[in-house]
Amino acid sequence: MKFSTDKYPSTYHFLKSAFVKDGQFKATPQIVDWIEEQNQRVSVSVKKIKFDQLDQWILDSEKGNIHHKTGKFFTIDGIRIKTNWGPIHEWEQPIINQPEIGYLGIIAKEFYGVLHFLLQAKIEPGNINYVQLSPTLQATRSNYTQVHKGKKPLYIEHFQNAKPREILLDQIQSEQGARFFKKRNRNIIIRIDADIPVYDNFVWLTLGQIKELIRYDNSVNMDTRTVISGIPFGSFDSKVVDFYSFLGSDRCTNSFGIRFLKSALTREGALHSIDEIISFLTKLKNDYDLEVTNIPLAHLKKWICSESEIYHEEKKYFKIIATDIEIGNREVTKWSQPMVAPSQEGLCAFVAKDINGLLHFIVQAKLECGNHDIVEFAPTVQCLTGNYRQTQKGALPFLEYVLNAKSEQIVFDTLQSEEGGRFFREQNRNMIIVANDELPDELPDNYIWMTLHQLYTFLKFNNYLNIQARSLIAAISFV
Amino acid sequence: MKFSTDKYPSTYHFLKSAFVKDGQFKATPQIVDWIEEQNQRVSVSVKKIKFDQLDQWILDSEKGNIHHKTGKFFTIDGIRIKTNWGPIHEWEQPIINQPEIGYLGIIAKEFYGVLHFLLQAKIEPGNINYVQLSPTLQATRSNYTQVHKGKKPLYIEHFQNAKPREILLDQIQSEQGARFFKKRNRNIIIRIDADIPVYDNFVWLTLGQIKELIRYDNSVNMDTRTVISGIPFGSFDSKVVDFYSFLGSDRCTNSFGIRFLKSALTREGALHSIDEIISFLTKLKNDYDLEVTNIPLAHLKKWICSESEIYHEEKKYFKIIATDIEIGNREVTKWSQPMVAPSQEGLCAFVAKDINGLLHFIVQAKLECGNHDIVEFAPTVQCLTGNYRQTQKGALPFLEYVLNAKSEQIVFDTLQSEEGGRFFREQNRNMIIVANDELPDELPDNYIWMTLHQLYTFLKFNNYLNIQARSLIAAISFV
Repeated sequence: MKFSTDKYPSTYHFLKSAFVKDGQFKATPQIVDWIEEQNQRVSVSVKKIKFDQLDQWILDSEKGNIHHKTGKFFTIDGIRIKTNWGPIHEWEQPIINQPEIGYLGIIAKEFYGVLHFLLQAKIEPGNINYVQLSPTLQATRSNYTQVHKGKKPLYIEHFQNAKPREILLDQIQSEQGARFFKKRNRNIIIRIDADIPVYDNFVWLTLGQIKELIRYDNSVNMDTRTVISGIPFGSFDSKVVDFYSFLGSDRCTNSFGIRFLKSALTREGALHSIDEIISFLTKLKNDYDLEVTNIPLAHLKKWICSESEIYHEEKKYFKIIATDIEIGNREVTKWSQPMVAPSQEGLCAFVAKDINGLLHFIVQAKLECGNHDIVEFAPTVQCLTGNYRQTQKGALPFLEYVLNAKSEQIVFDTLQSEEGGRFFREQNRNMIIVANDELPDELPDNYIWMTLHQLYTFLKFNNYLNIQARSLIAAISFV
Repeated sequence: MKFSTDKYPSTYHFLKSAFVKDGQFKATPQIVDWIEEQNQRVSVSVKKIKFDQLDQWILDSEKGNIHHKTGKFFTIDGIRIKTNWGPIHEWEQPIINQPEIGYLGIIAKEFYGVLHFLLQAKIEPGNINYVQLSPTLQATRSNYTQVHKGKKPLYIEHFQNAKPREILLDQIQSEQGARFFKKRNRNIIIRIDADIPVYDNFVWLTLGQIKELIRYDNSVNMDTRTVISGIPFGSFDSKVVDFYSFLGSDRCTNSFGIRFLKSALTREGALHSIDEIISFLTKLKNDYDLEVTNIPLAHLKKWICSESEIYHEEKKYFKIIATDIEIGNREVTKWSQPMVAPSQEGLCAFVAKDINGLLHFIVQAKLECGNHDIVEFAPTVQCLTGNYRQTQKGALPFLEYVLNAKSEQIVFDTLQSEEGGRFFREQNRNMIIVANDELPDELPDNYIWMTLHQLYTFLKFNNYLNIQARSLIAAISFV
């Protein structure tokens, strides 16, 4: 296989690791049991309290927001949105404001020639299944500068001291644009050669194992999914070498996996060039405005501030709650904080289809109020906070198609949790559908066909793919 | 030559046009005379007035800014900047705030098999040489929605009705981050086949001619330079075919040009991979904060608001002035507006050098207060608003090297104007230096080596290269 200028051929090793479904340390079914055990062993208590019972947090009527006494961590602000996008041109809502860029970091190491990734079975108060597999390191700047006087996060020194040649991936990626105001994290994977201690609740897994575990409901947390979604697998030139001779015929075990792999690696043959896709996005950024201004929480139109909740008058979307938390093996074992609780579960789905012998995905350009740059690429269907079961037929493109997909078209269908440090038991159904030729090539406005190679190309550069799209890409397996 | 999936092989045609220095319509020296003629024929009067004499514009002590009565066009705001970048961590300054994305559009058409670009000899009040070559269309949304009741901009309908297959380039790019708050424009080139009228002061030029004209001081305006800087020339794989056999030996006429071309087209062989460069940038965005808040103009620390000027107490950087303007062939012939007048000229220079047989450029990551995303890639040396002749020796990396470069190393050395609609007679010295092996490979922090192919790759995606870097790239000629 030919790969580009990397000194350590990381794309080759990432790909190899993605093919290995049984690592050196624990078999995948064992991991599932191990997470379950951890889950039963921990004691987690999340109690709803009143805002004025929050310790260190203030619902401040003067500033009009909820903030921590230190000014660190995050705030819950009120915002007014004005836009010419979509049917509703003006609305108000609470939003999480967390301007700090945090680390989502994974340590990788070769064992017997296969890259393994160090994940942690980590408790987070908002998680369904309190324990999920998280990155080696998950730390906001407030965490690692130790504002809350907890212990220093484990393994952080490896990330802070990493040399450029040890860094395999290092990207800034966004979080939910409907809930966070321009929040971003540093997604980073570093490779070490030295032996390092493996602390309690940490485990080495291959990429193939992680992708296998993502198939279990609420097992691999959002932070792990966003980091591994960015892993690059390289590319080959279809004009120079045939895909199947490039790959070696022994790999051809699963038709969906191989079709995804071909779409991931093939540089040529897409329906649209990268330049055309950039033009598609440029036009939207030119045509659509997004103006966000701050409003005190108490003044938000259609939102009600009670003693213990800030909620929409129709009980839609989500609410802000105050919680008292007690858990087992976290740095700080007892604290209180505001959280965001969803009103319904949502659905995120990619629909893909062969065009010119290459799988292409239907990608939606979507404006969300907290986006860093107006629109980002989103899955074919994303109705995160609406009640999709009551949506008017045909109102949301491809929703009916996804909900009525035949089982042999469904490659992936799993419930995934959003970030358990801010969201209270929020899960969304994640689906990947491979359509057959009956699905027409024509797309509605604001939708475009892209190969997986093109999605990976945009993913590399900041702020192109939203977290929902990346979460689905993380789930794509080549075996 | 092999090119990618474009239906119209635009990279091939762009490259071909870049090699043609004599177009079908006017020889290059004729164009220079023609601009000069235009210049002598126009009457331009720019008179400094007091702020309260501005028509339609208000220096508003309540809002603390200067704005147009309609709320359109732009405002001059005051801002306070806090950052942990560089030696000065907090300062205040006026800034131009123009949230509208405008069109910078060029129409291209083939004549006798060579792409020609329709440029306009356009008067702008702030220009040195009032007349410079500007894009076919240069229009803010306020212009084309006709807030000022002027004529509809010429040729705009071609851009508004362009079909995807007619669009050759379509990017959102930033303007000066030290002067504009997150201002961006839509840089677009469309190709037409039909005959269109060529109005007075418009002319068809090849890309080779435009690049030749950029060598003349203050002749090609900033808007033209930013649009043509983004023109992609495609790529080839050095592992598959040798560069000189790829190119054809008849092209090898000028050693600098061919070295630039090789660096522009070669996909492999760079010192750092794109992923490594993204990691370099990610670390900086993670480490450095940029916090900008609004302050009323009258309260800006170290700035003095007089009746007719807002200026720095040490007369440094720039000042805001009020002007009465009367000119010949613009849509509106008499109006008043605020402008930004620089205090000194600046210097922007790229230093390049062969590494592994490929020209690499020294690229600086630079934080500027109006940047869309904290840092952007800038030229090796950029001291736009400081008085570089008085800078302490060694204080600014590569400044001495550039100022003392031998003539045989200087590929480009020209005075270029900044945008004549906002800036009053601002020009900066633009230089490209090709260093020899004596220049060491080691770079200071925040500097990195990139090939021209890599610069073009980042240029494609939004907000990576700043306007000063793009202006220099526009000047690079392959012949």
